[in-house]
Amino acid sequence: MTETTDDTGRMGRRGLLGTTAGAAALAGIAAGAGSMALASGALAQAQRAAPAPTPRGGQSAEVKPGDLDEYYGFSSSGQSGEIRIIGLPSSRELMRIPVFNRCSATGWGLTNESKKVLTEGLLPATKEFLRKRSGGQSAGDTLDYHNGDAHHPHMSFTDGTYDGRYLWINDKANCRIARIRCDVMKTDKIIEIPNASDIHGLRPQKFPRTGYVFANSEHVIPIPNDGTVLDDPKNYWSVFTAVDGDKMEVAWQVLVDGNLDNCDADYQGKYAFSTCYNPNKGVTVAEMTDHEQAWAVIFDIAAIEDAVKRGDFKEMGGVKVVNGRQGSKYTRYLPVPNSPHGCNTAPDGIHVVIAGKLSPTVTVIDVRKIPDLFADKIKPRDIVVAEPELGLGPLHTAFDGRGNAYTTVFIDSQMVKWNIDKARRAFAGEKVDPIMQKLDVHYQPGHDHTSMGETKEADGKWLISLNKFSKDRFLNTGVLKPENDQLIDISGDKMILVHDGPSFAEPHDICIVHSSKVNPISVWKRDDRSWEDARQQAAKDGVKLEEAANVIRDGNKVRVYMTSIAPTDSLDKFEVNEGDEVTVTVTNMDDVEDLTHGFTMVRHGIAMEIGPQQTSSITFTADRPGVHWWYCQWFCHALHMEMSGRMLVHPKRV
Amino acid sequence: MTETTDDTGRMGRRGLLGTTAGAAALAGIAAGAGSMALASGALAQAQRAAPAPTPRGGQSAEVKPGDLDEYYGFSSSGQSGEIRIIGLPSSRELMRIPVFNRCSATGWGLTNESKKVLTEGLLPATKEFLRKRSGGQSAGDTLDYHNGDAHHPHMSFTDGTYDGRYLWINDKANCRIARIRCDVMKTDKIIEIPNASDIHGLRPQKFPRTGYVFANSEHVIPIPNDGTVLDDPKNYWSVFTAVDGDKMEVAWQVLVDGNLDNCDADYQGKYAFSTCYNPNKGVTVAEMTDHEQAWAVIFDIAAIEDAVKRGDFKEMGGVKVVNGRQGSKYTRYLPVPNSPHGCNTAPDGIHVVIAGKLSPTVTVIDVRKIPDLFADKIKPRDIVVAEPELGLGPLHTAFDGRGNAYTTVFIDSQMVKWNIDKARRAFAGEKVDPIMQKLDVHYQPGHDHTSMGETKEADGKWLISLNKFSKDRFLNTGVLKPENDQLIDISGDKMILVHDGPSFAEPHDICIVHSSKVNPISVWKRDDRSWEDARQQAAKDGVKLEEAANVIRDGNKVRVYMTSIAPTDSLDKFEVNEGDEVTVTVTNMDDVEDLTHGFTMVRHGIAMEIGPQQTSSITFTADRPGVHWWYCQWFCHALHMEMSGRMLVHPKRV
Repeated sequence: MTETTDDTGRMGRRGLLGTTAGAAALAGIAAGAGSMALASGALAQAQRAAPAPTPRGGQSAEVKPGDLDEYYGFSSSGQSGEIRIIGLPSSRELMRIPVFNRCSATGWGLTNESKKVLTEGLLPATKEFLRKRSGGQSAGDTLDYHNGDAHHPHMSFTDGTYDGRYLWINDKANCRIARIRCDVMKTDKIIEIPNASDIHGLRPQKFPRTGYVFANSEHVIPIPNDGTVLDDPKNYWSVFTAVDGDKMEVAWQVLVDGNLDNCDADYQGKYAFSTCYNPNKGVTVAEMTDHEQAWAVIFDIAAIEDAVKRGDFKEMGGVKVVNGRQGSKYTRYLPVPNSPHGCNTAPDGIHVVIAGKLSPTVTVIDVRKIPDLFADKIKPRDIVVAEPELGLGPLHTAFDGRGNAYTTVFIDSQMVKWNIDKARRAFAGEKVDPIMQKLDVHYQPGHDHTSMGETKEADGKWLISLNKFSKDRFLNTGVLKPENDQLIDISGDKMILVHDGPSFAEPHDICIVHSSKVNPISVWKRDDRSWEDARQQAAKDGVKLEEAANVIRDGNKVRVYMTSIAPTDSLDKFEVNEGDEVTVTVTNMDDVEDLTHGFTMVRHGIAMEIGPQQTSSITFTADRPGVHWWYCQWFCHALHMEMSGRMLVHPKRV
Repeated sequence: MTETTDDTGRMGRRGLLGTTAGAAALAGIAAGAGSMALASGALAQAQRAAPAPTPRGGQSAEVKPGDLDEYYGFSSSGQSGEIRIIGLPSSRELMRIPVFNRCSATGWGLTNESKKVLTEGLLPATKEFLRKRSGGQSAGDTLDYHNGDAHHPHMSFTDGTYDGRYLWINDKANCRIARIRCDVMKTDKIIEIPNASDIHGLRPQKFPRTGYVFANSEHVIPIPNDGTVLDDPKNYWSVFTAVDGDKMEVAWQVLVDGNLDNCDADYQGKYAFSTCYNPNKGVTVAEMTDHEQAWAVIFDIAAIEDAVKRGDFKEMGGVKVVNGRQGSKYTRYLPVPNSPHGCNTAPDGIHVVIAGKLSPTVTVIDVRKIPDLFADKIKPRDIVVAEPELGLGPLHTAFDGRGNAYTTVFIDSQMVKWNIDKARRAFAGEKVDPIMQKLDVHYQPGHDHTSMGETKEADGKWLISLNKFSKDRFLNTGVLKPENDQLIDISGDKMILVHDGPSFAEPHDICIVHSSKVNPISVWKRDDRSWEDARQQAAKDGVKLEEAANVIRDGNKVRVYMTSIAPTDSLDKFEVNEGDEVTVTVTNMDDVEDLTHGFTMVRHGIAMEIGPQQTSSITFTADRPGVHWWYCQWFCHALHMEMSGRMLVHPKRV
């Protein structure tokens, strides 16, 4: 085995660690899977890039104080359940957007506005489950899961490129899809997907616009999953879902065979693609991997829409489900080596790259051949135009818009740069090596993404490698280590590693959007729909939110309305009785950019964010007699410490 | 008013914005407070540093890929409720430690181990309140506040410097103090403080060791706060609390007059200091600020301990409360301009700096004079040795160990470097200007901290300014903007701004610890006390956690024990009945650094982290009949996707 150095001139990972880690991982796979593909794949481990010539490129990750980043990175946080806005190239986290998590700072999961987003799109059975769990007795609790597993954040498209309207992201853990408004960078809709075990891959339609948001159900389950079918895997299914991204409701689903993994859409608005492992519906690791081939499933969008129109569907779990199992006219199953993982459409509009995972190869298809496939003029494998061997554990591929692809290889811990055209020529028999460079990353990369790389405007400047392990790359943080999001300059001939970015569990995927595509506002508009319920309730109570200083009693419900202008709230106290259900509605009448206020009620677990010109509300039961201070928890003014007031709770007469 | 440039040579903030922001803030204060001190303070606004000569210093914030940071920054997250580990000088967030928040990734607030930490130290009345709120019916819910407001993180001391044992941090919102174990970087104890409205300032004893953790109660309330006293502020009180940091229980409290704000301890183990605003117990902003002077309260530790020993205390809320009101022999009230805020002990062991907030001054006291003060040989103001005028809104002060101090001035948005000795000489009448430099920061700084600056080993290399507003310094993230943690090189004669660090709401305070002081482990020890309850339950069930693959039924309780070794769990399925209370206990038997596993139960809101060699457990009610997959949500292996299993829930017979 060759010793390698990385491009910073240091001794490479293998030089430091030997091959123990790689070999152990390989042994683990072989034991679990016994895939033949791995044997040939081992050869790839000997391939290493030649020492780099003087690199071009030379971009720096440094952004000097006061300068702005060029790109937004919208990063999922994996099991942290949020979206993070990263500035690139500086790799600084600019903001967190609470989505499937609870957020102590903003009150996400506590405010009435966020509870509505978190609750209204849940399925009835889930609402019932959560109601049972919470006891359903108190205004202070939330019918919400409290956690999520946010995987794939992607922006809305118009004509093959980002349009700055929305982001969508899936929750693998609790089968949800969320939409984030990019004007205010807040989550505005969350829906739960029926008939699915877990929602994994997610991608928006690229053309003519989004439109559909495609989502994969991964594990197979009975439909309906009501206990009628239990330990009978042959009656388990998965579904491919098209969500109407404008209405945020399920448009249709397609029943398929096997576990759907990742997906992507084409640039023509005709097809969607999903990788599919576990074709035999195994329920153990051994059963899931005990075969040579699995599939990429291709969905014919227009044909499925037509089926829905014609009534060729079955109503299941309240949605229209079209049969897309093998043999269906709405789908085609492309055999690829087991178990495929990543699925990435190239900016050339022509190629889709399916990563091999257990095979050291990626499979490249040419979308121009797909109409003939659906017309049964050619066989599925006839659409394959390249299948280069890249290294051990290829997972995901990104593109530079110059004809090159960048594939993460998990077991080898490398980023492999290869040329699509050369791979086609090699597949056609020409003696040409498509691999241009392999760069060590640290360690075990999953998703990768390039700047604007999932659009037709891929600009080939930056590549980010989202590595699952960091091990020795940062100061020791105890047993739990950060992931490592590494930034790579791809503007020159050679990839150059420029930054190690530690990140909390676990930035699963990212999309990198040029800052010109995104134009958020800095002060809320008073007519924003987010607080429509509060607006309507205030109207019923005869209260003008913008001038409010009111306490409305309605039986044992008390509605407290106030405004905030630094450093005071319009009320400095209010009085309630023990056991009252109290709703506090605060309108921030400061209209200065960045002048957020907060409302925290001491020893009540109550806190919320109120941005400039925003209205936020929160409901709780006043079960603690006595004097309770609230205070502004968002530093707003030199007299911030003094911005507080008292809730006086009269005890119940005994 | 002089135009200024900052040290990067750019046009300064005032050049860009004019003085609108500063003037508006000033007007706001004047309207609310009418403090005379401000009038003279306005003069300070004209003071600006002369153009910098060629700076020395020249440290870079850049840490190249693979290199390590030199310092740990343990940053509170304000209302986000967590602690963040920041690498310095790179300013990268290395890790989040869940404390008072819920964490979707790690299952903090969901696992039995974390629920115990979050619950067992709560006061009985709080447990009852939370039990009512949750309905108290289901195993899936947590008697926890879900939020917190984490302000002041500080490490344990031995002999005046960090010893790497623990961190402590306060929750202002819900009156709690948490301890974090620095060997594993996890929260191990949280206690709620009685008799307090909200816990604000917190500092550990520096000498001979921690020992006590001192904590300030801010807002005044009746004691007991049971509704007997309501709108009667003259019967409101605040308390100064000493927590035994080893036992994590309240050692004693001291009753004081006014709102306690920030605190610090001396280097002799004799005294603690708290700033104190609102001396007249006002309940509105106007009442809180309508006076010329407030106090710094000095606590005589040995005298208080002796009072406790002698029985000179009152038992209140289950703890011993010593009377430290004005006139008490246990305290002294030092008059300072209203309303003081920061309170910082200098590494010289001699000086304590009280920041003026509404006064443009800071008040410097000499701890060597305090014995004479307690002996009534001198008057309180006789311990003041300097009171330099620094600018508008001085909040906090840090030190470089070379005799210089760095004070944030909030309204001026500046960092002021000044010399303690010169300030003493000026106070003594000498014509000398203690101010050495003013540096624009962006914008509105709160806490600041220097590397090792709160210890006797202050090394004068780095200064961080935690700014509350960022406005235009980063790509627009919508209405909510990040804060801005700016890194300043102080190794030379001049402060040089080297990095803008965006951060999520709101890194309130930080301590900067040299990496040599901290030595976490990377793999859990199997005898760790964190999962003692699971260990004992397993023993009762005859299960060996390290080899477990068991399902124990105990009435309608089902205990599922499994181990994880990538890429499989020791069970691939288990069966329960609808309505069973299920406890899943997973032991990660991988012993490879960074090989964390997870356990997520789909559509159940159930997720947890299991680090290498850790045992974690989680309890929920199996209320959903059908097939439910669990999966490992922590990417662990090339076959990570396949690491899953099924819970089969048999429906109730109707």
